[in-house]
Amino acid sequence: MDRTFSRIKTQSLNRLDLSKKGSVDEDIEHVVSLLNSCEQFFTTSSCSGRIILIDGVRQAFKSASYSDMSGLSRACGDAVLKFEPFVLHVQCRRLEDAQLLHSVAVNSGFRNSGLTVGKTGKIVSAVRSTHGLEVPLSRHGKLLVDEDYIQFLTQIANQKMEENLRRVQRFFQNFQSAVSAERQHIPDSPGTQEHQVSQHTHKKGRRGEQGTNKQNQLNVNKRRHQHETVGCHDYGDSSLPELNDCLDLFT
Amino acid sequence: MDRTFSRIKTQSLNRLDLSKKGSVDEDIEHVVSLLNSCEQFFTTSSCSGRIILIDGVRQAFKSASYSDMSGLSRACGDAVLKFEPFVLHVQCRRLEDAQLLHSVAVNSGFRNSGLTVGKTGKIVSAVRSTHGLEVPLSRHGKLLVDEDYIQFLTQIANQKMEENLRRVQRFFQNFQSAVSAERQHIPDSPGTQEHQVSQHTHKKGRRGEQGTNKQNQLNVNKRRHQHETVGCHDYGDSSLPELNDCLDLFT
Repeated sequence: MDRTFSRIKTQSLNRLDLSKKGSVDEDIEHVVSLLNSCEQFFTTSSCSGRIILIDGVRQAFKSASYSDMSGLSRACGDAVLKFEPFVLHVQCRRLEDAQLLHSVAVNSGFRNSGLTVGKTGKIVSAVRSTHGLEVPLSRHGKLLVDEDYIQFLTQIANQKMEENLRRVQRFFQNFQSAVSAERQHIPDSPGTQEHQVSQHTHKKGRRGEQGTNKQNQLNVNKRRHQHETVGCHDYGDSSLPELNDCLDLFT
Repeated sequence: MDRTFSRIKTQSLNRLDLSKKGSVDEDIEHVVSLLNSCEQFFTTSSCSGRIILIDGVRQAFKSASYSDMSGLSRACGDAVLKFEPFVLHVQCRRLEDAQLLHSVAVNSGFRNSGLTVGKTGKIVSAVRSTHGLEVPLSRHGKLLVDEDYIQFLTQIANQKMEENLRRVQRFFQNFQSAVSAERQHIPDSPGTQEHQVSQHTHKKGRRGEQGTNKQNQLNVNKRRHQHETVGCHDYGDSSLPELNDCLDLFT
């Protein structure tokens, strides 16, 4: 079972990132790297959080300003401003690994987190927040709110994004502590997947991207992994519930 | 293990409903009854969906109208209109029971669903939707939007509630089919918990509430179970992530 998990992990980490952005967002690079350095986990998709304005086309921001919304007066459809918090899917080797991750997630404030256990034994832990904001702004092209309200909304959305990133940091720290505590319980456990990381490093190195193990590990995650910041999740896996969440908005 | 689960189920169903409303909402009575009639499941909390206006005090509606918002001009704080969809927590006997329920939930459109597996082996399947609406309306007592916008918002919130209830119905039908299919696979399985339901019926009957088994079963669920419609979840169980979701809004 361990060998199979390890093989699936390697395949997944080597697969091309199918998201629009094509890399992990820098705000959560450290989280993704830490998870992937543990032999019992690998991330299959992630989004650090985003503020989105939808009006026919979809614009995403890390932080929003009134100027971002300036096109609203020319809106021709039903425009909506949305804040979507951090979301992360992590495939886990065993149920107890998923339990550990779930417990860390809930204790860090991600209270909509939950596990999925597939019929074939595939275990995925989803880290989800309860944070949200979803505000209709126009109807059939007619703007329904004024400038002051839009200013206020962008402020609220930015505050939510800041709180979201604080929560991500809490998750990172709690996960670090949990992994350290686990390693102390199992003194002989290798804990991190040095071998696999080295393999990646070597592979990248051969392509002329020399650097420290850690740097290369980040590169692997940034370039090859299925993550996204402002695009849709795109891991081609129908067993994960959030796959089409953002597509909902276009239908 | 089966006996322990059965005992915990009986205890839970006999416990007083700690929610504000004190009973299961009629929109989801049939869902809760069906789940509790299966020996491998029992519900620990539920909310059929609600539209909430928060401004110091908290008002909840099954459907909203402009008159519900008429107090907004006297708002003294930061008023927010929110739509919260159906949420359901179901304790499951075995992991495969939870998998079945989870699969039905995701296939019915509840894509933020997930399992929680406690250290003591307690398995809970949470059914959650991605539907939402969260609109700030006033700031420090100053109303930031006009009457037309509030009319429009109540319309959107009501549409979301209708879609929510359609999705609940889909979940009910899909769950019914899944349970029937399971029973066909295990011809000797009793499927529903006739014995336990009869016990409840008898108990209620002695208190002068005679009726058919089914009617009494509904009464048991309505009067004794920990559910709510317009209050907060209140099952006194910190392992379930949504416990304080609605409290968030007051902090």
